[in-house]
Amino acid sequence: MNHTREILEQLQSGVLSVDDALLRLKEEPFADLGYAKVDLHRTLRQGAAEVIYGAGKTPEQIIGIAEAMRRRSDAPVLITRLDNAAAEQVAEQLPLTYHDSARIGIVGTPPEPDGLGTVLIATGGTSDIPVAEEAALTAEVLGNRVVRLYDVGVAGLHRLLHHMDDIMGAGVIIAVAGMEGALASVIGGLADCPVIAVPTSVGYGASFGGVSALLSMLNSCASGVSVVNIDNGFGAGFLASRINHIRPKK
Amino acid sequence: MNHTREILEQLQSGVLSVDDALLRLKEEPFADLGYAKVDLHRTLRQGAAEVIYGAGKTPEQIIGIAEAMRRRSDAPVLITRLDNAAAEQVAEQLPLTYHDSARIGIVGTPPEPDGLGTVLIATGGTSDIPVAEEAALTAEVLGNRVVRLYDVGVAGLHRLLHHMDDIMGAGVIIAVAGMEGALASVIGGLADCPVIAVPTSVGYGASFGGVSALLSMLNSCASGVSVVNIDNGFGAGFLASRINHIRPKK
Amino acid sequence: MNHTREILEQLQSGVLSVDDALLRLKEEPFADLGYAKVDLHRTLRQGAAEVIYGAGKTPEQIIGIAEAMRRRSDAPVLITRLDNAAAEQVAEQLPLTYHDSARIGIVGTPPEPDGLGTVLIATGGTSDIPVAEEAALTAEVLGNRVVRLYDVGVAGLHRLLHHMDDIMGAGVIIAVAGMEGALASVIGGLADCPVIAVPTSVGYGASFGGVSALLSMLNSCASGVSVVNIDNGFGAGFLASRINHIRPKK
Amino acid sequence: MNHTREILEQLQSGVLSVDDALLRLKEEPFADLGYAKVDLHRTLRQGAAEVIYGAGKTPEQIIGIAEAMRRRSDAPVLITRLDNAAAEQVAEQLPLTYHDSARIGIVGTPPEPDGLGTVLIATGGTSDIPVAEEAALTAEVLGNRVVRLYDVGVAGLHRLLHHMDDIMGAGVIIAVAGMEGALASVIGGLADCPVIAVPTSVGYGASFGGVSALLSMLNSCASGVSVVNIDNGFGAGFLASRINHIRPKK
Amino acid sequence: MNHTREILEQLQSGVLSVDDALLRLKEEPFADLGYAKVDLHRTLRQGAAEVIYGAGKTPEQIIGIAEAMRRRSDAPVLITRLDNAAAEQVAEQLPLTYHDSARIGIVGTPPEPDGLGTVLIATGGTSDIPVAEEAALTAEVLGNRVVRLYDVGVAGLHRLLHHMDDIMGAGVIIAVAGMEGALASVIGGLADCPVIAVPTSVGYGASFGGVSALLSMLNSCASGVSVVNIDNGFGAGFLASRINHIRPKK
Amino acid sequence: MNHTREILEQLQSGVLSVDDALLRLKEEPFADLGYAKVDLHRTLRQGAAEVIYGAGKTPEQIIGIAEAMRRRSDAPVLITRLDNAAAEQVAEQLPLTYHDSARIGIVGTPPEPDGLGTVLIATGGTSDIPVAEEAALTAEVLGNRVVRLYDVGVAGLHRLLHHMDDIMGAGVIIAVAGMEGALASVIGGLADCPVIAVPTSVGYGASFGGVSALLSMLNSCASGVSVVNIDNGFGAGFLASRINHIRPKK
Amino acid sequence: MNHTREILEQLQSGVLSVDDALLRLKEEPFADLGYAKVDLHRTLRQGAAEVIYGAGKTPEQIIGIAEAMRRRSDAPVLITRLDNAAAEQVAEQLPLTYHDSARIGIVGTPPEPDGLGTVLIATGGTSDIPVAEEAALTAEVLGNRVVRLYDVGVAGLHRLLHHMDDIMGAGVIIAVAGMEGALASVIGGLADCPVIAVPTSVGYGASFGGVSALLSMLNSCASGVSVVNIDNGFGAGFLASRINHIRPKK
Amino acid sequence: MNHTREILEQLQSGVLSVDDALLRLKEEPFADLGYAKVDLHRTLRQGAAEVIYGAGKTPEQIIGIAEAMRRRSDAPVLITRLDNAAAEQVAEQLPLTYHDSARIGIVGTPPEPDGLGTVLIATGGTSDIPVAEEAALTAEVLGNRVVRLYDVGVAGLHRLLHHMDDIMGAGVIIAVAGMEGALASVIGGLADCPVIAVPTSVGYGASFGGVSALLSMLNSCASGVSVVNIDNGFGAGFLASRINHIRPKK
Repeated sequence: MNHTREILEQLQSGVLSVDDALLRLKEEPFADLGYAKVDLHRTLRQGAAEVIYGAGKTPEQIIGIAEAMRRRSDAPVLITRLDNAAAEQVAEQLPLTYHDSARIGIVGTPPEPDGLGTVLIATGGTSDIPVAEEAALTAEVLGNRVVRLYDVGVAGLHRLLHHMDDIMGAGVIIAVAGMEGALASVIGGLADCPVIAVPTSVGYGASFGGVSALLSMLNSCASGVSVVNIDNGFGAGFLASRINHIRPKK
Repeated sequence: MNHTREILEQLQSGVLSVDDALLRLKEEPFADLGYAKVDLHRTLRQGAAEVIYGAGKTPEQIIGIAEAMRRRSDAPVLITRLDNAAAEQVAEQLPLTYHDSARIGIVGTPPEPDGLGTVLIATGGTSDIPVAEEAALTAEVLGNRVVRLYDVGVAGLHRLLHHMDDIMGAGVIIAVAGMEGALASVIGGLADCPVIAVPTSVGYGASFGGVSALLSMLNSCASGVSVVNIDNGFGAGFLASRINHIRPKK
Repeated sequence: MNHTREILEQLQSGVLSVDDALLRLKEEPFADLGYAKVDLHRTLRQGAAEVIYGAGKTPEQIIGIAEAMRRRSDAPVLITRLDNAAAEQVAEQLPLTYHDSARIGIVGTPPEPDGLGTVLIATGGTSDIPVAEEAALTAEVLGNRVVRLYDVGVAGLHRLLHHMDDIMGAGVIIAVAGMEGALASVIGGLADCPVIAVPTSVGYGASFGGVSALLSMLNSCASGVSVVNIDNGFGAGFLASRINHIRPKK
Repeated sequence: MNHTREILEQLQSGVLSVDDALLRLKEEPFADLGYAKVDLHRTLRQGAAEVIYGAGKTPEQIIGIAEAMRRRSDAPVLITRLDNAAAEQVAEQLPLTYHDSARIGIVGTPPEPDGLGTVLIATGGTSDIPVAEEAALTAEVLGNRVVRLYDVGVAGLHRLLHHMDDIMGAGVIIAVAGMEGALASVIGGLADCPVIAVPTSVGYGASFGGVSALLSMLNSCASGVSVVNIDNGFGAGFLASRINHIRPKK
Repeated sequence: MNHTREILEQLQSGVLSVDDALLRLKEEPFADLGYAKVDLHRTLRQGAAEVIYGAGKTPEQIIGIAEAMRRRSDAPVLITRLDNAAAEQVAEQLPLTYHDSARIGIVGTPPEPDGLGTVLIATGGTSDIPVAEEAALTAEVLGNRVVRLYDVGVAGLHRLLHHMDDIMGAGVIIAVAGMEGALASVIGGLADCPVIAVPTSVGYGASFGGVSALLSMLNSCASGVSVVNIDNGFGAGFLASRINHIRPKK
Repeated sequence: MNHTREILEQLQSGVLSVDDALLRLKEEPFADLGYAKVDLHRTLRQGAAEVIYGAGKTPEQIIGIAEAMRRRSDAPVLITRLDNAAAEQVAEQLPLTYHDSARIGIVGTPPEPDGLGTVLIATGGTSDIPVAEEAALTAEVLGNRVVRLYDVGVAGLHRLLHHMDDIMGAGVIIAVAGMEGALASVIGGLADCPVIAVPTSVGYGASFGGVSALLSMLNSCASGVSVVNIDNGFGAGFLASRINHIRPKK
Repeated sequence: MNHTREILEQLQSGVLSVDDALLRLKEEPFADLGYAKVDLHRTLRQGAAEVIYGAGKTPEQIIGIAEAMRRRSDAPVLITRLDNAAAEQVAEQLPLTYHDSARIGIVGTPPEPDGLGTVLIATGGTSDIPVAEEAALTAEVLGNRVVRLYDVGVAGLHRLLHHMDDIMGAGVIIAVAGMEGALASVIGGLADCPVIAVPTSVGYGASFGGVSALLSMLNSCASGVSVVNIDNGFGAGFLASRINHIRPKK
Repeated sequence: MNHTREILEQLQSGVLSVDDALLRLKEEPFADLGYAKVDLHRTLRQGAAEVIYGAGKTPEQIIGIAEAMRRRSDAPVLITRLDNAAAEQVAEQLPLTYHDSARIGIVGTPPEPDGLGTVLIATGGTSDIPVAEEAALTAEVLGNRVVRLYDVGVAGLHRLLHHMDDIMGAGVIIAVAGMEGALASVIGGLADCPVIAVPTSVGYGASFGGVSALLSMLNSCASGVSVVNIDNGFGAGFLASRINHIRPKK
């Protein structure tokens, strides 16, 4: 609201006319590219990186948005759900690092980790790794130190218990699992930090494309667990970063 | 088919007429009470006890069926889903032992355990106990030794791991859990015997009356786990007994 | 594992025999009340309070568990899903403060707030307040300062925008809404802190007992939002407290 | 019924025989092409244009129907769900304007707008644009002035609020959104005209092909909102036109 | 935005100080009763009546909100989902007319009809009448002339066809039906005005509490039909009124 | 259309005026009781009895409709879904025979059977009998000979096979079953007449109120099986009667 | 059972030994091709034609089964769900007539119609025709006269009413419709013969692959309607033939 | 726990230092290949063979895991869900036997059968055979004698009854069926050994990819039946082997 006061004072002091004041109150806080409204205030509000959701956008649109972002800020740009072919086109125009299995592209250099603790990312099986990597790369590009703990599903519990130290030492944990998604509950019962559960569409038959894992995680008997959408590695990584960068307020 | 051969031989030898042979081939292997066809051959085929599914039957019907069963066999009669009021009426006519929370009544004396090993019954929480008791009493009345391991849900894993010996020593395990039903997967990963998973309707919201646990159990990443209907303690106990009484064949 | 090292050293130094060492390694870290295994280490691990999930437990069981907890620790005991009648019985034995609409009872005195920031709890309508209060009381008893912002649903957006300062100043936000659950997305788009979305079963027809709000929240187009089970105010409050008490690790 | 009276009077006056009268009463008010019954009275009843639902029809069938329509009326013909390949074939026979992303073809010239007000079409994201364009082109070909407001999803609320004038000035609004579909509720709360919500299949995981947005819109806490089928841009545009051309009756 | 200009002009002219201007820009456009934020600008924006959604509110809350509304405006107050017992309490404090089967209470006098045409409300069966009455009374209290056409389901098509004149003469039609909900499609095919379909929870078995009718209506093969939530008579009546009061804009 | 010709001829011959002809063409073929439109032509079209769907109608409404029916025809009146209390009220006014478990009331005397063959009604268990009786009584009141074959579920296949003669001798079969509904497939494979499958809501857990049986029956691997709604005994009996009274046409 | 008596009499008279009698009682009533058990008694039991469900069978398997059938009987062989490529291979070995859109192949000559009446097959739209043709060809090959009435959906009711004579004159009606499936209810209300409803997967969005139409048809408010599986044209044609060939029994 | 005692004794006797003891207590009981944690203790615990779930693994990963397994044990390695292309690559490195339709590869030689009885595997139709073969090959490689009984669905019950001897003689039965899945109930009613039901995704329309069969099997009215995931042949074969190798315990 400080900005409003400033405008009002300029109006009062005659620097602005009523029409100019009205205009500035309405003035668009984002650049309009026609096909997408780029929110240029967001970096400020959200920190270390800009994000483009690549699915359903043409390479041209992605490049256009990324360039607009980079004109205003030095922050790296994270492009999610970017397929191979599109990545190649983007890479011709921009300094893109592409992570194949996670379908993530990064323009620019990820920052040094500056979060409170580490983000531990665990998966039930090897098929969950692409989603986990989406989370991991997102968290890294947003300035977090990430520890990966893959293929530690509950069917072989000793694999998980063996890494008890990592679990107890984490600041935030992301539990990625398909099928019955029990990993989230078991980790939720062991850990004493926030746990973000990511159901994956790994499985067949009555896994219903991730619904089984999703329900399992929503009904977790362990406290301190919350859930994001099926296969939403980005969302988990983003939220983990927010938690890991939490600052005292008010 | 031996019975058929016997009839044919009696026909051939003139002991039976064609009409008598036809009649005996058709002869009904069950008593018809009008409202229910009681299968009197089943005790022979299925072993230690007779079973009446009490839900949706009047106390009079239950008494009638139980009496017909007992006229033919000494086996105890197990009555499931028997509510308190009906149990009282039945108890006036028959020597009934009633188990309140499991809603099970038993007419007659359960046999000595004669199964191969023990049946271990584990629950995730205290609210799952009624379903577990339905399974336990069913298994006991069918001649099995039962070990109960209640309230060992995965949110506090040490409670379960503490009983590792029971798990490794069981002949068959019944895992009873609501909410996210992860207990079945964790036990399935630890044990090396058959595991029967029973989802319960314990939970709220997105547990959808047991659907979450059911899907979880069907998608168990642990091998050697199969599933029965939601809250079907009887079915689990019955199947456990069949497995525990398996005999070499052919 | 430090505890293990200690036991091993005592064994090595002859303070413990092999049998005693074995016994101590197995020693049960919880009290067994028969009907429930009370985890007495948890306070240590989880902080300011003990929790009893009251649904499906008799008043006697609740009292027994609460007393066992209080013998070991001074922490307040939070009893969720406690109905009026049970609360009255518990209150005869224990110093209980009962919150009617939230169905929460608290034994003992909540601690002073010691979290990093404030926990803001917003609801879409007045019918969502009981769930919100479950979250609020849980957070308070775990040592958090809570700000309540009720009846700010998106159908009258100015009600929400009017409280922009609270939203921008919060450390963690819990968004509680039934029907279409759009509140979580709108707040998620405005805030720059972690947002925990709680779908409620408020609504009728195609709200399907909270499923509509649940799906809406899982699919939120705003980043930084995660979801707990339908009507799970406790889970949201507990997780908010964990986030609000996060400490630098490793 | 005037037509009936006319026939009866002609019969009475001897102009028609009984058989002719019977025939005319039965006379088919549509042309029968064998594969489709073309309703030629509809233009009269429904106004500015004819519509062919292109999905599941061969280019030959589409051409046949369009030609039959055009023999009877000058109205433009709108062909929906027309894929690229079919459009090319149709364009060889008829003066077709084809809109690629909306998969709409128009034969003939859209009329001048003659509705009461403007039809505002808003989308949550860029991926919803094809459905929105189906609505927009439908409305235009039926004689409406259309204002497009794309990529104004609630995750960045200022984008929407910036266009408050368009919202308050609209005669009818079509809100097109996938994922959690919150746009409809937010617009419904801001506007004071009828709002038609169109859920789209944009999203993944628990969006279930548009079901999440659909439920969200059906449960909108804002009054004055109704819903059409997932991705049904045509239906929304058609209904908007009906509302926008409403005339005083009786 | 005119209001904003006015404030700015008063600031410029010195009538307001910067602080006063800031205050007035923030000034709350609603009364805060603690448990509910009453939107007092809404009557202006939405016309003839105020609405209270009665479900989940105590009689005291309802009375409080209604009184706040009436202090600011003469408009009648419509209270929906008001049960009998609550109605009696409200009636002691306010001049309430209560409609039993529709569960609607009206405080004050409905206005003279001033809409463009008539609102026709049709039901499939007699069991759908309460929902239809909710729609009818809502429309009437908002200033619409309503024609009722009840029990004209498609199983006896002649009942509907007999009222062809009403259908063709309506300005807006509300089609209320449970079971298979075919009424909406049939009316949609006959009418040339906007049709609002209201699925009801009338039915059993695979009607799934209105889901069958809901899906049927969403998939209507007739154009010009949109749908509101199951049993949402109020929503249909409100929307019909908006359509019926549409005014030329811009 | 013969009736139309007749009217036209009378018009031509001067027996009718144009207005009278118009009137007769429109003449209402049903009585209007205000709350229900009674179709008095239906007996003619549908045969032996009139039907009132009792659910959601007051005893007064039922009596009113039944009396209107009986004023025009001698046919018995079948009242379905009639609860005990309502039945008592109806019985005070009309000669009602009430069947308790089937919740069916019959006013008047059922006709002699005049169908082509017998209608065989089989149930899987005893709990399915009320639905089966609704079917049986409906079929009887419509003039069919009915054979009842109850409690012949596939878990004890010999019970069914024992009645092979009844199955092969039936004209139409109604298979009534809950739980997994396998009865329909087994009978469908054995019989060579039309089989109407009626899923019942008998079961628990994953039977989902009859959905399991419904899906099972829709997917029957046996040909010649069709399905009606869950618990819709009336529908099955009515359809069986139509099939059993089929007459050569055209 | 006559066959059984015959065997017993031959045993009694010494024509058969006990072993031979036993063997003949067990004698397999079908030919075993290894991959499929061909039921050669079925033609006798079911009438005019043999049926092969083509989906999931190789052309070689289809040819093998068809040849086995034709060795025993002159009846035509109907092959359903036969794709183009397979049809070509089959046609090289057998006198196959292939119907492309219905994916049906017929080996041999369909019989003269010998049913009681005509089978009327109606569709809502043109996209439903392939399913309708599957029904029509099935009915024809089983000896029924078929009348086709395509594209008469309820959105243009006059198209259907125009054919009232066909509807009233039919012996059995098959109503084929996707989307909201209202056709079945409307026809069910008009006709007085059995109506078989076939939901199709035609539609999009909330039609959920035919579920909307399926539910609609199961909940039909018209009596005398039953339903088969989605897209199951064969099942409807087969059942229609059974009804149309019903013969007086017992 | 014997292993623990051993370590403690070595510590006490000075053979191990505290650090070594700690290390050995933590020592990883599996080989870490980076992409997968191979559990090398499992052969011991689970018997005759190692299993690799092939879906979602590259041929290189499969080869790596298989080679690690074979370095430690002579047991054959079963690779499930192995597609043709991958099988070819694996076969170049390892002695692989590939079963095409079951998508199973076996490295090494299956053992001699050493189970208690035979495992009978029955299918409803020919399309279920691939799933049945997955079960059969799994059981064989784990040391079981398997009897196959394919295409014995309940629509032709005599096919199943003809093999009554096989059913009564089996030690464990696996019932594999799609569509309505009634086979499991019928076999469950006939047999007196454990029955494992495998729903398959065979079917169309309302079979919903196996959901219909799954629900049917979960609701089986026959006792002694449990269920695994849709198309989970491996799980059924594995569990059957566990049951068939059950040994007396404790």
